[in-house]
Amino acid sequence: MLGVGLIGTGFMGKCHALAWNSVRAVFGDVPAVRLVHLGEANTELAVRRANEFGFQKASGDWRAVIDDPQVDVVSITTPNQFHPEMAIAALKAGKHIWCEKPMAPTFSDAEAMLAAAKKSGKVAALGYNYIQGPAIRHIRKLLAEKIIGDINHLRIEMDEDFMADPDALFNWKHEATSGYGALDDFAVHPLSLLFTLFGRVSRVMCDMSKPYATRKTANGTDRAVETYDSASVLMHMENGVAGTLQANRSAWGRKGRIALQVFGSKGSILFDQERANEFQLYVTADRATEQGYRTILTAPHHEPYGQFIPAPGHGLGFNDLKIIECHELIKRINGQPAHLIEFADGLEIERTVHAMARSYQEQRWVDVR
Amino acid sequence: MLGVGLIGTGFMGKCHALAWNSVRAVFGDVPAVRLVHLGEANTELAVRRANEFGFQKASGDWRAVIDDPQVDVVSITTPNQFHPEMAIAALKAGKHIWCEKPMAPTFSDAEAMLAAAKKSGKVAALGYNYIQGPAIRHIRKLLAEKIIGDINHLRIEMDEDFMADPDALFNWKHEATSGYGALDDFAVHPLSLLFTLFGRVSRVMCDMSKPYATRKTANGTDRAVETYDSASVLMHMENGVAGTLQANRSAWGRKGRIALQVFGSKGSILFDQERANEFQLYVTADRATEQGYRTILTAPHHEPYGQFIPAPGHGLGFNDLKIIECHELIKRINGQPAHLIEFADGLEIERTVHAMARSYQEQRWVDVR
Amino acid sequence: MLGVGLIGTGFMGKCHALAWNSVRAVFGDVPAVRLVHLGEANTELAVRRANEFGFQKASGDWRAVIDDPQVDVVSITTPNQFHPEMAIAALKAGKHIWCEKPMAPTFSDAEAMLAAAKKSGKVAALGYNYIQGPAIRHIRKLLAEKIIGDINHLRIEMDEDFMADPDALFNWKHEATSGYGALDDFAVHPLSLLFTLFGRVSRVMCDMSKPYATRKTANGTDRAVETYDSASVLMHMENGVAGTLQANRSAWGRKGRIALQVFGSKGSILFDQERANEFQLYVTADRATEQGYRTILTAPHHEPYGQFIPAPGHGLGFNDLKIIECHELIKRINGQPAHLIEFADGLEIERTVHAMARSYQEQRWVDVR
Amino acid sequence: MLGVGLIGTGFMGKCHALAWNSVRAVFGDVPAVRLVHLGEANTELAVRRANEFGFQKASGDWRAVIDDPQVDVVSITTPNQFHPEMAIAALKAGKHIWCEKPMAPTFSDAEAMLAAAKKSGKVAALGYNYIQGPAIRHIRKLLAEKIIGDINHLRIEMDEDFMADPDALFNWKHEATSGYGALDDFAVHPLSLLFTLFGRVSRVMCDMSKPYATRKTANGTDRAVETYDSASVLMHMENGVAGTLQANRSAWGRKGRIALQVFGSKGSILFDQERANEFQLYVTADRATEQGYRTILTAPHHEPYGQFIPAPGHGLGFNDLKIIECHELIKRINGQPAHLIEFADGLEIERTVHAMARSYQEQRWVDVR
Repeated sequence: MLGVGLIGTGFMGKCHALAWNSVRAVFGDVPAVRLVHLGEANTELAVRRANEFGFQKASGDWRAVIDDPQVDVVSITTPNQFHPEMAIAALKAGKHIWCEKPMAPTFSDAEAMLAAAKKSGKVAALGYNYIQGPAIRHIRKLLAEKIIGDINHLRIEMDEDFMADPDALFNWKHEATSGYGALDDFAVHPLSLLFTLFGRVSRVMCDMSKPYATRKTANGTDRAVETYDSASVLMHMENGVAGTLQANRSAWGRKGRIALQVFGSKGSILFDQERANEFQLYVTADRATEQGYRTILTAPHHEPYGQFIPAPGHGLGFNDLKIIECHELIKRINGQPAHLIEFADGLEIERTVHAMARSYQEQRWVDVR
Repeated sequence: MLGVGLIGTGFMGKCHALAWNSVRAVFGDVPAVRLVHLGEANTELAVRRANEFGFQKASGDWRAVIDDPQVDVVSITTPNQFHPEMAIAALKAGKHIWCEKPMAPTFSDAEAMLAAAKKSGKVAALGYNYIQGPAIRHIRKLLAEKIIGDINHLRIEMDEDFMADPDALFNWKHEATSGYGALDDFAVHPLSLLFTLFGRVSRVMCDMSKPYATRKTANGTDRAVETYDSASVLMHMENGVAGTLQANRSAWGRKGRIALQVFGSKGSILFDQERANEFQLYVTADRATEQGYRTILTAPHHEPYGQFIPAPGHGLGFNDLKIIECHELIKRINGQPAHLIEFADGLEIERTVHAMARSYQEQRWVDVR
Repeated sequence: MLGVGLIGTGFMGKCHALAWNSVRAVFGDVPAVRLVHLGEANTELAVRRANEFGFQKASGDWRAVIDDPQVDVVSITTPNQFHPEMAIAALKAGKHIWCEKPMAPTFSDAEAMLAAAKKSGKVAALGYNYIQGPAIRHIRKLLAEKIIGDINHLRIEMDEDFMADPDALFNWKHEATSGYGALDDFAVHPLSLLFTLFGRVSRVMCDMSKPYATRKTANGTDRAVETYDSASVLMHMENGVAGTLQANRSAWGRKGRIALQVFGSKGSILFDQERANEFQLYVTADRATEQGYRTILTAPHHEPYGQFIPAPGHGLGFNDLKIIECHELIKRINGQPAHLIEFADGLEIERTVHAMARSYQEQRWVDVR
Repeated sequence: MLGVGLIGTGFMGKCHALAWNSVRAVFGDVPAVRLVHLGEANTELAVRRANEFGFQKASGDWRAVIDDPQVDVVSITTPNQFHPEMAIAALKAGKHIWCEKPMAPTFSDAEAMLAAAKKSGKVAALGYNYIQGPAIRHIRKLLAEKIIGDINHLRIEMDEDFMADPDALFNWKHEATSGYGALDDFAVHPLSLLFTLFGRVSRVMCDMSKPYATRKTANGTDRAVETYDSASVLMHMENGVAGTLQANRSAWGRKGRIALQVFGSKGSILFDQERANEFQLYVTADRATEQGYRTILTAPHHEPYGQFIPAPGHGLGFNDLKIIECHELIKRINGQPAHLIEFADGLEIERTVHAMARSYQEQRWVDVR
C-alpha cells in the first residue's frame, strides 16, 4: 500500500491525480495506491479538489501533506518557484517526491534540491513525461540495436504558440524574473529526450530572439519584454554527435510540437509529439527501390502500450504518459530498475539550459561542464 | 454516490474500469463513484481483477453483481452472446446498464433487450465510444451550423488487419455462428458515427467477400471460412444523402482506421480515427487562392478536451473516449441531456447491419425498415 | 523522322504539343520528331498555335492535317464528340493516331473506331496518361512480383471539385446529351489504372447521385440537372477480386485525387495522384515491431523517372506523364512492346462504364460482357 | 528569334535543353527559340546530344558555341570550376548567359564574373530554379500582403542523402578543393529562397560536421574526408529577423527536401520541396476553433501554374521550374521585369556562404558584409 500526497491541482496536479487513480488498474503489478492527502493554496479549494480527485484529506497548508505520516510519496505540481522549499522539506520528512519540471528557477536551488535528495536516500523523480511514450521508448530500443547504424546528426524542435499573440498583455512570463523564456519553458523537454536517447550535451552555442519587443500592459502603456520566446542552439553531444535544438513559444500553428530528426549511417528516425502515436523509420536495409520512411503506429509490442490497449493503432493520450511515469516511479520506489529522470539527471538538464543562456549572453560557444 | 458493478475484465472490461476510476477526477461535476462489485468467469480471476481495478467485492457469478443492492449501474463487457441474458437480468433487477456493442448476435435478442430497457425505465447505454471524441463532437457542431453547407455525399471506411494473416488458424470468428464477419465486427462503429452526425440509413446494397476461402485448422486440415472479412455497401441516408460504407478486418497496414469523408455544398470534412486528435476542414468561404484542407488539432475549445488537458494539441487517447462516454452515462442517469447511444438507437444500428447482410444474400437493394 | 499532326489545342492539345516537343530530348532513343501540321477550328487560331507550339503548317480544317502526306501520326485532342469522325478518317488515311480519352460518347461509335483501327493496321492509342507515372509503373512491377502477396481487395476513388459550386450556372455538362456525368468524366481514368494493374472488370453494381437537383440558367430560371456528379460502384474483377470504384466531380477540396488502395495477403499499397511523386507500401515481411506504410519517393530507379531527372525525390509533373505516353506511342509505332492503352482496351473501359450506367438504371448487378 | 547555345549536357544541361525546347509552347508570349549550337567535351558526344536535344550545330570546343554569331544566349551547365572562364568569355563575346549555380568555387572568381557581367551590359542569370515554383511565388505574394503579419522567425533545412552511404568510396567531393561541403552544395539553394522571400542575411554563426571522418579509397586504404556534409547556421537577416539554416547531404531518407518554416505575428507558412505542389498556411484570422494549417494544392491561380495546366492540383515537376526560369530569363533579355537571380544577387549568396565558412573556422559570429 502506497500513501500519496499531492500539492497543487492545476494542469499538472490534475494530471498526477489521474495517474495515481489509474496506475494500478492499468499496470496491475503495483501495490494498491491510497490517495491520502491533498494540499492547495487554501482549504476550500483543497477540499473541493480532494473530493473530485478522491483524496481522503485536504489541507490549505502544504506542510500538512508533507508531515502526514500516511503519506509515502508526494507529488509536487506547484509553480517552479515553490519547488525547492517543498521538495527539500518533503525529502527531509522522509518522503519520496515526484516533482514537476523544471527543478527550480535558479541553478543553485536545483543543486540544493539534489543535495537534499542524496542526503535523504529517497527517490526524487521529475515529471519529464515525454520520455515515457511508447514511440520514444521504442526508438530508444532501435537506437540501441543500431537499426540506423551510428548516429551522426540530430535535430530537435519544440514549438507552441501560447505566447504568439502580439495583442496579449504583458504578463509575468515576460519578466526576466521568470527566467530566460523559451529555454526554461521548453528546452528542458527536448533535452530530456536527448538525454534519454543519446546522452548529455557537451557544448552549446545559443541565439535567442524576441518576436515582440514590447507589449501593452493592462493600463495601456507599452512595456519592454524581457524574455526570449525563441531560442536556437548549435550543440555537440558528449558522444561527439553534432546537432541543433530549437524552441519557440510564439510559433503560430504549433500546439505541442516536439519534432525529432535523427540521422545515422544506416537510416534515420523522425518523431513529432503532435502525432505521438506514430514515428517514422527509414532504413537502408530495405531494398533500394522500396526505401522510404515507414510510418509506424504504436501498438502493444511497443511497451507499455499493451498495458493500456490490446489493439494496435488505437492511440494513447497525453495523460497516459503520466500514468506510465507514475508506474516507473513506483518501480523505482520498490527498488526496481526504472526509466525515469531523477534529480541527478534533472540537474544536468538545467545545467545545460543555463549554459545555453550564458552562451547567448557571451555570444560564444560554452562548455556545459 | 453511484455504485458500480462490472462484468467482464477483458479489453473493454479494463477500459470501463479505467473510466470509472477517472471520470470524477476528469470532470469534477459528477457524484462520487464507488466501485462496488466485479464479476468474472471464476472467483479467483474476479478477486485478482477487483484488486487491480479497485472494486470492493468480487464474484465468480455475474448474478451476484446484478443482485448487489449497492450496485446502481452495471458495466457489461462480456462477449456478445452473453449480453442479452445479462442485460435483461440487470434491467429487471432495476440497474442501469452500460453494455458494450453490439447488442446481441441476433436481432430478436436485441429487440428483447430494448423491450426490457423500456419496461425497466432504467438507462440502457451502449459502448459506442468513437462518437465521443472531441474531433467528432466538434464536427457535429460544424455540420449543424452548416459550415460546409448542405451535405451531398458521404464515405466511411473502417479497416483493421487483425484477420489479415493467411497463415492464422481457423477460429470461431470464421464460423457463421459468430455472425457475418466485418459487418458485425466493424460496420456498427461507422454506423454509430453516421447516426450521430447525419441520422439513420434508409436503403442499402451490400457486397461481401472473403480474402481467404479456407484456413488451416489446428490439426492441419483445411476448413472453409464461413464469414466475410470485407463488406462494401452503397447506401442512402434517410435525409436523402447517398454514400458508401466499407469495412475490412483483413486490411494489412490498417490498425484502427475509421476514415470519414463528408462533402457539402460549401466545403468538406475529413477524419481518420488513426489520427483522432485532428480533423480536416475545407471551406469555400476561404479566399480562392488559399483554399485547402485545414488540419485542425483538437484543443480545449473542442469539448470536452479541456477537461483532460488545458493545452491544445497534446492529444487524448483511446481510453479517454470511454471516460467521456462514462460521463455522458452519468449525466443521463442524472436526468440530464446526454450524447450517448442507447438501446433504441443501438437496435436501429443492428437493424441496418442485418439489412446489409440481407441485401448481400438477396443481391439487391434492401430498405432498412 | 516522325511527322506529327495535331488537331485541337486546348488543355490536352497543348499537353500533346509539349510532349512532342520534348520526347526526344528526354528519352534520346527515338527518331527525330517533326511537328508538321496543326489543325484548329479556324485558320487564325491554328496559325497562332502552330507558331507557339512549333508546327510548320496550320489549317482551319482538320482534314488538311489528316491528308498531309508528311504527317505520320495524328494527335486528336478535340471534344469527345468529334473523336469518331476524326479518328476513323485519320486511320483510313493511313495515319497512326493518338486520341484523347474517352473514345466516343456512344459505345457504337467506339466500336466503329476500333473496327477502323483494326482494318487500318495502324496504331490507335488513347491518352490514358495516369498509367504512365513512375509510381504506378513501379507498383505494377511490385504487384507482379507479389510483394504484397495475392490481392484480395481493391478500392479506387477519383474526385475533383470543378462541378462543386452550387451557384455555377447550368451548362452542357449538366445535360444528358453530355453523358452520364462522373462516370464518363472520371470513371474511365480509375478503370485505366485497374486494367493496367489488375485486369478487367467482370460485374458491377452502381449507384449515382446528384448533389444539386437544379441549377440556375443564365436567364435566372431553374433547370433540372440531368447528369450525375457522383458515382459509387461495387465491382468484381475478372480475376475474382472484389472492390469498389467511386468518382465525384463535386467533391469540394479534391483537385486531382485518384486514390488507390490495394490489399493483399502480405501487405498493401496506397497511391494518390494528388501526391503522384510518392506511393505507400506496407509489407508483412518487415519485422513486426517496425511494420508501417513506407512513403516511397519516386527516383531514377522507378522507370522512366531517370530519363527526366538523375536525382531522387525531385518530382515529375502532370505534363511529364504525356511525354512518357508519347514515348510509349513511338515505341509502339516502331514495333516495340509498349505500355499503352490502345483502342481494344479502351473499348473495354467504355464497355465497363456503360455497364455501370445500365446497372444504375436497372438497379441491379450487371455483367460487363 | 532567340539563338541559343548550350555548354554541358549533364543533369542540368539536359534540363536547360528541355526548357529551351518547351518555353514557347508553354508560355506563348516569347519569341521563337532557335537551338543553334551545343558544346560538349568532345565532338562525338556533342553531336549525339545536339541530335537528341534538337540543336543545329555541335562542337567539341565550347569556345565555338560562344563565338557563334547566331547564338544570342548561352546556357552554361558545366562543373563549377569551369563557370568563370566560360561565363566571362561569353559575356565578352556579347552573349547573355544563363549559368548554373553556384557561380564559382572561389569568391574572387565570382567577383570577376560579376564585373564581367556589368561591363558587358548583358544579362547574366543564375540557375536558382527553386525560387520559380508556383508555391514559392505565391508565398512571396502572401508575405508581401502580410497575411501572416510581421515575420519574426525563420527556419530552413535542405537535406539529401546522396553522400550518406558510409561504404561509398572517397571521391572528389570529399576533397577540400571541391569546397566546404554542404555549404557549397546546398546552402546556396535555401539562401536563394531566403533572398527571394525575405532579403539578405546580415550575420551568421555556423557549425559544420562530418558524418564519416574517413572513407575507403579504391585501393582499399582509408583517407581522411576533408569536407563537411552537414552545416547548421544561426543567422540574422538584414531585416532583423532571426532564424536558422541547416544543410545535410548525408541525411538518409531525405531526397530533395527543402523545408521552410516562417512564423509571423498573425500566422505561419510551411513549405517542403519534396511536396512542391503544395504549401501550408496557418492564419489567426480563421475562427479560433477551426484554426489549422491549410494544405493548399497549387493551381492555375498560383502563377505561372496555369501556363502549364488549366486544372488545379495536377502538379508541376522539377523540370518545369527550369522552363519557368527560362521564361523569366527571356523576359529579362527583352527588358521586362523578371523574377530571377542574377550575378549581383548570386554574388551576395556566395558572400553569405563564405561568411558561414569563416564563422565555422573562427568559431564566432561573422558579419556577412
